[in-house]
Amino acid sequence: MEFINNGTITGPKGFKAAGIFCGIKKRKKDLALIYSENACSAAGTFTTNRVKAAPVVLSMEIINSGKPVRALLVNSGNANSCTGEKGLQDAIESQKLCGRSLGIKSSEVLIASTGVIGVELPMDKLSEGIKNIPESLSCEGGHEAAEAIMTTDKKEKSFAAKINLSGGQVTIGAVCKGSGMIMPNMATMLGFFTTDANIGPEQLKCLLKSAVKDSFNKISVDGDTSTNDMVILLANGASEVSLNNPNDIEKFQEALSALAQKMAIAIVSDAEGGTKLVTINVSGAETSEMANIVAKTVANSSLVKTALNGCDANWGRIMSAAGMSGCDIDPEKMSIWFNDLPVIKPGYKIALDEAAALEILKGSEYEINIDLGIGNESTRWWTCDLSKEYVEINANYRT
Amino acid sequence: MEFINNGTITGPKGFKAAGIFCGIKKRKKDLALIYSENACSAAGTFTTNRVKAAPVVLSMEIINSGKPVRALLVNSGNANSCTGEKGLQDAIESQKLCGRSLGIKSSEVLIASTGVIGVELPMDKLSEGIKNIPESLSCEGGHEAAEAIMTTDKKEKSFAAKINLSGGQVTIGAVCKGSGMIMPNMATMLGFFTTDANIGPEQLKCLLKSAVKDSFNKISVDGDTSTNDMVILLANGASEVSLNNPNDIEKFQEALSALAQKMAIAIVSDAEGGTKLVTINVSGAETSEMANIVAKTVANSSLVKTALNGCDANWGRIMSAAGMSGCDIDPEKMSIWFNDLPVIKPGYKIALDEAAALEILKGSEYEINIDLGIGNESTRWWTCDLSKEYVEINANYRT
Repeated sequence: MEFINNGTITGPKGFKAAGIFCGIKKRKKDLALIYSENACSAAGTFTTNRVKAAPVVLSMEIINSGKPVRALLVNSGNANSCTGEKGLQDAIESQKLCGRSLGIKSSEVLIASTGVIGVELPMDKLSEGIKNIPESLSCEGGHEAAEAIMTTDKKEKSFAAKINLSGGQVTIGAVCKGSGMIMPNMATMLGFFTTDANIGPEQLKCLLKSAVKDSFNKISVDGDTSTNDMVILLANGASEVSLNNPNDIEKFQEALSALAQKMAIAIVSDAEGGTKLVTINVSGAETSEMANIVAKTVANSSLVKTALNGCDANWGRIMSAAGMSGCDIDPEKMSIWFNDLPVIKPGYKIALDEAAALEILKGSEYEINIDLGIGNESTRWWTCDLSKEYVEINANYRT
Repeated sequence: MEFINNGTITGPKGFKAAGIFCGIKKRKKDLALIYSENACSAAGTFTTNRVKAAPVVLSMEIINSGKPVRALLVNSGNANSCTGEKGLQDAIESQKLCGRSLGIKSSEVLIASTGVIGVELPMDKLSEGIKNIPESLSCEGGHEAAEAIMTTDKKEKSFAAKINLSGGQVTIGAVCKGSGMIMPNMATMLGFFTTDANIGPEQLKCLLKSAVKDSFNKISVDGDTSTNDMVILLANGASEVSLNNPNDIEKFQEALSALAQKMAIAIVSDAEGGTKLVTINVSGAETSEMANIVAKTVANSSLVKTALNGCDANWGRIMSAAGMSGCDIDPEKMSIWFNDLPVIKPGYKIALDEAAALEILKGSEYEINIDLGIGNESTRWWTCDLSKEYVEINANYRT
C-alpha cells in the first residue's frame, strides 16, 4: 500500500463529492455529498449511545438491509439528535429530497449529521441546499466535502491510499471529522471511506469492523460518546478489481486499518483545546481486555490529562489511574517510560531524570509506555491533554 | 438530632486534636492529630484503587483487626503513595513515633496521608513534628486539625451534631478534606468522625457503611479515585451512652448520615476550580443501580460539566450522557428539569424557557432533575462544573 499525497474521498474511481454552504451554520460550509456513479456495497458502525440521533437510526436501517447505496448526505452545524418524531421525519425528508435531486432511490441515500443536539433542522434552508448540491459534485470535490463536515475541527482530515492487488490497483479514500465528545465504543465521530474495489457487503463489514477496532475505538478526547457518530465504508467496484485471495484481503485490510489509524490520530491531534498527541502503550497485561481497560482509564483521567497539559512528569497520576481501572494489576510490578526514558521501575523504584522528562513532555507528540509486568498482552491508545481551551470551547458551544 | 454551630471533631467528650506545621509543606499547617483519652472502637472504609498508599494499607490492617484505637495521625502535602517498601517503613515508623510520644501502643495509632504521589516522606521533619504535636492537643483543637489536613481545599470542613438518645445525649464530630480526585467508589477523600457514644466495632462498621453509601459515594469532581482516601469513625464511649434500642440506632444513623452528606457536599462545593454545586436527582429508574449509573455518568461527563460552567442550558448533553451510561434507558420517555423549570418532556418535547433557565444556571447552587420514566427507583448525586481553574490547578500541582 501507498498513501496518496493530498488524497481525499474522491480518490477512488467513480466517486464525486461536493461541499457547500446552505445556511445551517452562520457562514461556513455545512452540507456535504458523496456520490457514486455505480451502486455501492456499504458497511457501517454506529454510536453505542442509547440516545441515537435520527440520521443514525435511518442509516443503520439502510446498512442493515444490505441493499446497495449510491450517496451519503452529511450536514454539520446541527446533529438532528433528541429531536423526536419530527427529527426522524426531517431525516427521511432529506433523504427523499436528495434521492430526487440525484435521480436515484431515496433508499440509496445514507444520512449523517453533526453539530448541536436538541435543535430541529432548518428544513427550508436544508431543502434548498439539497436541491442545489448535486451541481457542485466533482471528482475534485473531496476537500470541499471534508470542509463541510467540520464542526469545531481546526483542520480538514482527508486521506487516501492505493493498493496493488492480484487483479490490479484499487484506491481507498477517507474523510473524518471530530474533535470533542470522543470516546471509545465505536463510531465516536464521523468517518467515511470510499473504495473502487469490488467487495460485497458481508466482507466489507468484516474489513470495517477490524479497522475500527484498533483506531477509532482506541482514542479519547473527553470520555463522552456522541449520539451521532458513525463510520461508513462504500465500495463501488469501479476499478473492476476484486479481493481474489487471502493475500489481497490482507493487503486491503492493512491499508484500510492504516487509514483508519491516520484518521483516529488526526482527530486526537485536532482535539478541542488539545496541545499534545500522546500515545499510550500498555504492555505486560494478563489479557488484551486488561491492557485496553488500563489504557482507556489512563487516557481518560482528567488528572493525567491536566498533568500532560502542564508538562508535569506526575507519574503517580498514571499509576493511580491504572489502579482505579478496576483491573487486577500489581502496582509493584509496573514500569513506566516517557518515550524510552525510564520513569519508574518495578518495586516503585524511581528512575526519573526530571530535566530529561521535561524535554519530552514539552513536546507536542510523545509516548507513555506502561508495562504492567504480569502478562504478554498489549495495546496502543491515543489521547490528548486537557486544557483551559477545552473548557472555553465547551462552556460556550451552543451560544 | 441538632447540628452544632461551629462544631468540630473535638465536639464529642474525651477527644482532643491539634494541627501544626512541621515542614512537609512550605508554610501551611501539615500535620494533624486526633486523640482520645479512652480506647475507641474504630470503623473505616478505604479507597478501591488497586494502588493503595502505605498509610491506607497500614490503617486497613488495624481497622480489620478490630482492636481499639486511641489516635489518628494525618499529614498533608505528601501522600506517601507509590513509595514502595520505603513508604511502608516510613508509615510504620511514624506510627511508632506517634505511639511513643503519646505513651500508647503503636498499634493504637491510625495513619492517613494526603498530597503529592510518588515522593518519599521527609522523615526528619515529620519525626520532629510527631514528637512535638502532643503538646498542642486540646479540646479546642478541632479547627487547627481541620486546617492541617487541607491540600487544595479553600475552606476548612468541620461539622458536629448532638443527638438525644434514650440513655442521654451523644455527640458526633466530623472533619474532611478533598477538592479534586473525587469520584465514587468509596473513600474518595479523607473524612474522620469522632463520637462519644458507646458503640462496638461491628455496629460501628454498619453505621459508617450506610452513611458513606449515600454521601461520599455519590459525589464527583473529576472522576478520579485517589490512592489515599479513607473515612474513619472513632467511638470512645466517653458519654457513657449506648445505642440501647432500634430507635437509638436509627437516630444515630440519621445524624451520622446527615453529617456525612454535609461533608460530601462541602467537598463538592469546594471542588478544585468549581464554581457551582449541582445536585443531580435521577428518578423513574428501573433499578437503584440504573439510577446510580445514570446519575454518575451525568455527574462525570466533561461535556455536561463544561456546559454547567458556561451556564449553558445544553440539555442535549445531559440526554447524551444518560444515553452513554450503558443503561437500557428509553430517551423518548425521559424528562429533565432545572430546579422545577421543565426543560424536556417525554417524546423529546422541548419545554425550555431559555431566559428562565439562564437565571437558574447562573446561580451557584441548583438541581438537575432527571426522570427516566421507566420505573420507581431514584438517587441523588452531587457534582460541580469543570472550569479553566480546575485545569490551571491540576496542570501545575507538583510544581
